Amino acid sequence: MDNREGNNDIESMEGLGREVERNGSGFEDEKEAGMRQPLLLRKRTMNTTSQIAIVGANVCSIESLDYEIVENDLFKQDWRSRKKVQIFQYIVLKWTLALLIGLGTGLVGFFNNLAVENIAGFKLLLTSDLMLEHRFFAAFLAYSGCNLVLAAAAAAICAYIAPAAAGSGIPEVKAYLNGIDAHSILAPSTLFVKIFGSVLGVSAGFVLGKEGPMVHTGACIANLLGQGGSRKYHLTWTWLRYFKNDRDRRDLITCGAAAGVAAAFRAPVGGVLFALEEAASWWRSALLWRTFFTTAVVAVVLRALIEYCRSGKCGLFGEGGLIMFDLSSTITTYSTPDLVAILVLGVIGGVFGGLYNYLLDRILRTYSIINEKGAPFKILLTITISLLTSCCSYGLPWLARCIPCPADLQDQCPTIGRSGNFKNFQCPPGHYNDLASLFLNTNDDAIRNLFSGNTDNEFHMSTLFVFFTAIYFLGLVTYGVAVPSGLFVPVILAGASYGRIIGTLLGPISDLDTGLFALLGAASFLGGTMRMTVSVCVILLELTNDLLMLPLVMLVLLVSKTVADGFNLGVYDQIVKMKGLPYMEAHAEPYMRHLVAGDVVSGPLITFSGVEKVGNIVHALRLTGHNGFPVIDEPPFSDAPELCGLVLRSHLLVLLKGKRFTKERVRTGVTELLQRFGAFDFAKPGSGKGLKFEDLDIQEEEMDMYVDLHPITNTSPYTVVETMSLAKAAVLFRQLGLRHLCVVPKTPGRPPIVGILTRHDFVPEHILGLFPHFNPHK
Amino acid sequence: MDNREGNNDIESMEGLGREVERNGSGFEDEKEAGMRQPLLLRKRTMNTTSQIAIVGANVCSIESLDYEIVENDLFKQDWRSRKKVQIFQYIVLKWTLALLIGLGTGLVGFFNNLAVENIAGFKLLLTSDLMLEHRFFAAFLAYSGCNLVLAAAAAAICAYIAPAAAGSGIPEVKAYLNGIDAHSILAPSTLFVKIFGSVLGVSAGFVLGKEGPMVHTGACIANLLGQGGSRKYHLTWTWLRYFKNDRDRRDLITCGAAAGVAAAFRAPVGGVLFALEEAASWWRSALLWRTFFTTAVVAVVLRALIEYCRSGKCGLFGEGGLIMFDLSSTITTYSTPDLVAILVLGVIGGVFGGLYNYLLDRILRTYSIINEKGAPFKILLTITISLLTSCCSYGLPWLARCIPCPADLQDQCPTIGRSGNFKNFQCPPGHYNDLASLFLNTNDDAIRNLFSGNTDNEFHMSTLFVFFTAIYFLGLVTYGVAVPSGLFVPVILAGASYGRIIGTLLGPISDLDTGLFALLGAASFLGGTMRMTVSVCVILLELTNDLLMLPLVMLVLLVSKTVADGFNLGVYDQIVKMKGLPYMEAHAEPYMRHLVAGDVVSGPLITFSGVEKVGNIVHALRLTGHNGFPVIDEPPFSDAPELCGLVLRSHLLVLLKGKRFTKERVRTGVTELLQRFGAFDFAKPGSGKGLKFEDLDIQEEEMDMYVDLHPITNTSPYTVVETMSLAKAAVLFRQLGLRHLCVVPKTPGRPPIVGILTRHDFVPEHILGLFPHFNPHK
Repeated sequence: MDNREGNNDIESMEGLGREVERNGSGFEDEKEAGMRQPLLLRKRTMNTTSQIAIVGANVCSIESLDYEIVENDLFKQDWRSRKKVQIFQYIVLKWTLALLIGLGTGLVGFFNNLAVENIAGFKLLLTSDLMLEHRFFAAFLAYSGCNLVLAAAAAAICAYIAPAAAGSGIPEVKAYLNGIDAHSILAPSTLFVKIFGSVLGVSAGFVLGKEGPMVHTGACIANLLGQGGSRKYHLTWTWLRYFKNDRDRRDLITCGAAAGVAAAFRAPVGGVLFALEEAASWWRSALLWRTFFTTAVVAVVLRALIEYCRSGKCGLFGEGGLIMFDLSSTITTYSTPDLVAILVLGVIGGVFGGLYNYLLDRILRTYSIINEKGAPFKILLTITISLLTSCCSYGLPWLARCIPCPADLQDQCPTIGRSGNFKNFQCPPGHYNDLASLFLNTNDDAIRNLFSGNTDNEFHMSTLFVFFTAIYFLGLVTYGVAVPSGLFVPVILAGASYGRIIGTLLGPISDLDTGLFALLGAASFLGGTMRMTVSVCVILLELTNDLLMLPLVMLVLLVSKTVADGFNLGVYDQIVKMKGLPYMEAHAEPYMRHLVAGDVVSGPLITFSGVEKVGNIVHALRLTGHNGFPVIDEPPFSDAPELCGLVLRSHLLVLLKGKRFTKERVRTGVTELLQRFGAFDFAKPGSGKGLKFEDLDIQEEEMDMYVDLHPITNTSPYTVVETMSLAKAAVLFRQLGLRHLCVVPKTPGRPPIVGILTRHDFVPEHILGLFPHFNPHK
Repeated sequence: MDNREGNNDIESMEGLGREVERNGSGFEDEKEAGMRQPLLLRKRTMNTTSQIAIVGANVCSIESLDYEIVENDLFKQDWRSRKKVQIFQYIVLKWTLALLIGLGTGLVGFFNNLAVENIAGFKLLLTSDLMLEHRFFAAFLAYSGCNLVLAAAAAAICAYIAPAAAGSGIPEVKAYLNGIDAHSILAPSTLFVKIFGSVLGVSAGFVLGKEGPMVHTGACIANLLGQGGSRKYHLTWTWLRYFKNDRDRRDLITCGAAAGVAAAFRAPVGGVLFALEEAASWWRSALLWRTFFTTAVVAVVLRALIEYCRSGKCGLFGEGGLIMFDLSSTITTYSTPDLVAILVLGVIGGVFGGLYNYLLDRILRTYSIINEKGAPFKILLTITISLLTSCCSYGLPWLARCIPCPADLQDQCPTIGRSGNFKNFQCPPGHYNDLASLFLNTNDDAIRNLFSGNTDNEFHMSTLFVFFTAIYFLGLVTYGVAVPSGLFVPVILAGASYGRIIGTLLGPISDLDTGLFALLGAASFLGGTMRMTVSVCVILLELTNDLLMLPLVMLVLLVSKTVADGFNLGVYDQIVKMKGLPYMEAHAEPYMRHLVAGDVVSGPLITFSGVEKVGNIVHALRLTGHNGFPVIDEPPFSDAPELCGLVLRSHLLVLLKGKRFTKERVRTGVTELLQRFGAFDFAKPGSGKGLKFEDLDIQEEEMDMYVDLHPITNTSPYTVVETMSLAKAAVLFRQLGLRHLCVVPKTPGRPPIVGILTRHDFVPEHILGLFPHFNPHK
C-alpha cells in the first residue's frame, strides 16, 4: 500500500541521500522543486489532504527560530532596546501569562474531571439500577445507548468543527515545538472541540484517556493567550502584542504542554519532565523555571478545587485528593526473585509495546482511508467502535463466574452505587463479578482497582486475561476514531492487567503485593509504547505516591524501553512520521556525512538587489513559495557583488503593502521607513493571520519603481561554506533552530551566494514522500 | 581590594567590549595577547596560583566539542565507520560504564555513610558517657580533641595530596561540563582525598555536608573509568580506549555527577534533575536516559546495602531506609493562612540566601589570602575553625534551660546512646537539653530532629534562634577551609531552624505541623542560596517522601529564588566566577550586540600551508600557546589561496612525533599516514596525558623538510563572515560547543581567513581580570 522504501536501513538512506544530490533537489521550497523540475524522480510532495489519523495538511514551517538577536536597525526599535519600564512590563507579562496558562489548564482539567465523573457516573448508576431489577436487556440498551449518543456527539463536533482535534495531540504539539505549524492545530476551535470532545469521549466509555487531549488543550490555551487572543472570535488583548515572536510563543506552548500533563495526572514535576523529555525540541534553563511555575499553579488550583468539592458540592465528583492512585500504604519490601520478575515484566512490556505500536500504525493507515471519505464516515466509524466497546464491556462480564464476597472486608460488597471493587452485575446477593468491576467502571476507577493493594485473590486469572486482551485491542481500534483520545490510560490499563497476572503467577516466590505488580506492569507497557523514561517514572511516582517503588519502576522502564527500541519507534514519533510532519531530529542523518552543503543546493537561485525593482519582487513572490530571499549588494552600493543578507517573505509583503516606493534607485534608509511603519508592523503575526500575496494591491506604474530592502534585511544570516560537511551544517541548522541557512562559495570570483538550505533539505525525503496516494496532485 | 570595575552594569560592559575592539585583543589565546601586546590596557590574565578557595589554577579549555561528526578521512577510520560488531561493543561498553559509575558511586556513598556513622557515633557516645559521669571538662576535651584530630587529618591530606579536593566540587564539575578543564580537578588523587577527606570532615563535626563532595566523587569516578584508568597508578583498562573523545567523556561525567547526588540524598530522580538543571551545559535526550540508568543503579546498590545492614551488621550504622527523613506519616492539610506563611518564608529565605552568598564571597576572598601562604596555614585555619565549632557545639547548649521530658512519649527521654531527640547533657534525670539535641548530634540527625512532626513544643524558640545563628555563621566560615565540604547540609539546617521558628510563631493561625514548616524553611533557604528549582524540589521530595507538600515546596522555592535573584548570583555561579573559571553562559552578553565578529579578531594570524615546512610548525608551536591553527591551501595545491581547514595543536604534536617528513613539498595523503599511525593515536588523551612540546625531538636537518597537514586537517570548520553580529557568533559558538570559530572575509581578494574566535573572546574580560593581585606576573 505505501512506499516501503521508507522503512529501509542506513544503507538505503545513504542511497537516498545520493539521490537527493543527483536530482539536485536542493531548492528552497518544495513548491519550487515541483514547479521547475517536473522530471524529479521522486517528487517532494506534501500531504495536503485532511483526514483524522493523518492531519499533515497544509504543513507550514514556523518562521526562522533564529530569534534572540536583534537583527537589524529596524528591529532595534523593538521592545528589547526600549526603556527599562517596558522590559519590566515584558517580564511581568511573561509571568502573568504563565500564571494564566496554569490557571486555565488547571480549570479545564478540573472541569474535565468533574464532567466525566458526573456524566459517566450517571450512566453507570442508571445501568446498575436496571441490573438490580434484573432488567438486563434494558440495562444493556441504556448503557450502550448512552455510550452511543455521547460518542456520536463527540465525533460530530470533532468532524464538523475541528478535525485537527482528533487523536492525542501530543505528536502535533511535539511537531509544533520542532518548528512545524500544522494547519489550525492550535486554533480556538480546536481548543473547544478538544475540551468538550474529550469529556464526551471519556464519558462514552471508550478505552481512551484524557491525558493527550489535556496536553493539547494546554498548548492551545497557551497559544490563544500568547497571540493576544483571537481576532476571529473577538477576543483580543492588545497588551499581549509583546509576544509576537517565535521564541516567546514556543516557550508559552511548552509551558502549556507541561501544564496539561500536570492537570491530567495531577503531577506537577512529571509535567515539567514530560515537556523536557518528550515535547520540546529546544530547551533553555530559563524555561525549566517558568514551566515549573506553571505546573505549580496547576497543582494549587486543582488542590483548592478538590478541597472545595470534598464536602460533596460537586455532584458525583467526590473522593480522591491530589494523589490519584494512592499506594503509599502498601508495604514495599522486595528481594532478589522480585528483580527477576521485573526483568520478565520489562521484556514482556517491551514486546507488547513494540507490537502495540506496529499494530497501531497498521490500524491508523486503514482508518485514514475511511476517515478521508468525509465527516459522516468518521461519525459512522466512531459509532461502530462505540458499539463494539459497549458489547465488550457489557457482554464479557457474563463469562466470569460469581465470586462470594470476602469475609473480612471494610468495603461494601457487593458495591452499591457507582464505583468500587465489587460490582454485583448478574450475581446473587453476597457475590460479585470481578470482570464487571473492571469493565463497568470509569477507566480511572478500573486503574484504581487494579493498583489496589492487599487484594491478591480479588481478581481471577481468567478475568485479568480476558480484560487484558479486550483492553489491548479496544485501545488499538479506538485511537484512530474522530474523538480526542489519549493513549496513556489504555496503556496503563493493559499494563496493569498483565502486571497483575505475572504478580499472581509469581505469588509463591515473591513478597511483592499484586497491586505493586500492576504498577510495574503499567510502567513496563508505558516504557514499551511511549519510550519515555524519567517523565513516566515521575508521573507514576506522583500518581501513586510510592517513592519506595521508584528503583523498581526505573529498572522495569529501562528494560522495556530497551527491548522495544529494538523493534520500532516510540508511538508519538511514529505518528509524527506517519502524518508526514517534517520533524527534524536532533542528530544528523547518517547519509549526510557523505555529502557537503554544496551538493544539495542547486541554482538558479532567486535573489534581490539591495534596492530592487517592485515588479521583480512581486514576480518572485507570485511565482515561488519561498519564505526567504538572499539580498545581494551590487555596484554602486558596494565595490563588488556581496551578500547583504536575507529578507523574509512576510516582511516583503508588509513592505510592499506600505508602498514607500521611489522612482530612482536610491537607498532610503531606516528613518524614512519608520515614518510609515510601527515597530510591531513587522512583528510576527499569529498563525494564518499574516498578509497574503493576494492582499497586495500594486498598480502597474508602481511595478517599475524601486524599494530599498536594506532596512528589512537580516544582515547577519548564518552561513556555511559550500564544502562544509552536510552533517555539520545540519547540526548547526538544528541546534540554532534556523529556517534558512545560506551556503556561500569557497573560492572568490563567483556569485556571493550558492544557495539556501531549508528545513526540507534536512528531513529525509522518504518521510515526506511516504504516502504517495495521499497526494492530491497525483 | 579587587578590581571593582568588574561589577559594573551593561553600559560599562559595552565600554569593555569596545575596549576589546580598540586593543585588538582578539588573539587566539591569551598567551599570545600577553606576549605580543604588552601595552594592552587590562591584560587578559589567567589565575594560575594554587589555593584552596580559588583553585582556578592552570585552567585549560577542553578541546573542541565539535565532535559528533567524523571530520576527515583519517577519523573515518574511527570506530563509527567500523563493523557493526564494534558499534555493538561500543554501546555495550557505554552502558557497562554507566553501570560501573553507578556501582562505584553507590559504594562510595554507602562507605561514606557507614564510616561517618561509626566515627561520629563513637565520638558522640564517648562524650555522652563522660557527661553522664558529670566529667564535663573531660567530655569537652574528648569531644573537641576528636574533632581536632579528625579535622587536622582531613586538612592534611587535602593540603598535601590534592588541594583541588577542598570545597564543594560542584562549581568545578559545572565548569568542566562547560568546557573548562581545571588542573587535576578530576585526578585520582583528588578522588582519594575527596572520599576520605569528606568522611573525616563530616565526622569532625564541622557544619558541612557530604553532598558536594559526593557529586565531585561521582565525577572523578566517571573520569577515571572513562579514561580507561590511570596510567600513573597502573590502573588501566585498554578496552576503554573507545571513549577518547570529549563528548563521551563529558557524558560520563554528567552521569557521575547525577550519581553523586543520587548517592548523597538517596534521590535518583533528583540526581538526574540536578545534572540537567545545575551541572550540564550541553544536554542531549540520550543523556537523560543514561543518567537515569546510573542513578537507578545507585539507588539499587544503596537499598541492597542498607537492607544488609538493617540487622545491625554494620556497627553503629543502622536505621533509615532509602528515605532519609521520612515525613509521610505527618498529616498535610493546609489552608489560606499557610499560603501567607509560605510567602513570608520565601521572602525570608531569599533575603537570608542573598546575604549568605554575599558573606560567603567575602569570607572566601579573605580565606584565599591565608590559604595561599601554604599547606601549614591551611591546616592551621582548619584547626581554628574546628576549635570554634567545638566550642559552639559544646558551649552553647549550656545556655539552654533543662526541659522536663514530655509525659506521653514513645521515644526514650532522655535519650540513651548516640542519636535521638532528647539529649540529657547537663540536665538532671527526666529532663533534656533541646539545644544539645541539635548540636551534639550528626548533622543528619539534627535535620531529622528539626523535620520531625508532632513535636511542636520540643524545641524552645530561644534554642532555635541560637541554633540558627550559630549554624548560619559556622556554615559560612567552614566552607573555605581545606576540607571537602558540601553546602546543602548547612543550608538545610539553617533553613529548617528558621522554618521552625516561623512555624511556632504562626502556630495559632496555621494547621501545618512545625516539622513541615522546617521542611519549607529548608526549601526556602535552598532556593535563596543555590537558586535551583526543580531539582531541589525533587530532592526534598525524595528525602522526605511527602508528595502532598510538593505544591507548597514549589511555591516557597519560587518566591525565595525570585527574591534572591534580585540581589546576586547563585552560590555555585558565584564561586565559579570568583575562581576565575572562564564559564561561558548560554546567552550572549549584551555588549556583543553592538559588535561584529571582525571587530574582535585582529591579525597577524599564524597560519600553515597545506604542506608546511617542519621548522615553521615547530616554531609556531614553541612561540604560541594556540590550540588551533588555520591551514591555507596555496598554489600549486589550489588555484588561489583558500581556507583548507583547521588543525589542532595536539594532532600536530602527534604528527611531528611520528616523523613522516618528506624532502619535497608534496602531498603524501592518508594511506601513507595510516602506515605510521593507528586510529587511536590521534584520539584525545586523558587530561594532562597528551604529548607536550618538550616531548618532540626534531633534528636540525628535519627542520627544512615538509609534512603534509591535509590528513589531520578538519576540513569543515564552522565559519562566520566578519560582518556577522558578535552576539550571533557567540550563540553559534556556545550552542555547538565549539572551541575555535573561523572568521572569514566578506569581500573577495583578501586572505581567506581573517581570524579565529576562541572561548576567551566570548567570556567577558572582567571575569578573567577580576583578581589582578592573584596574577603571579604582576
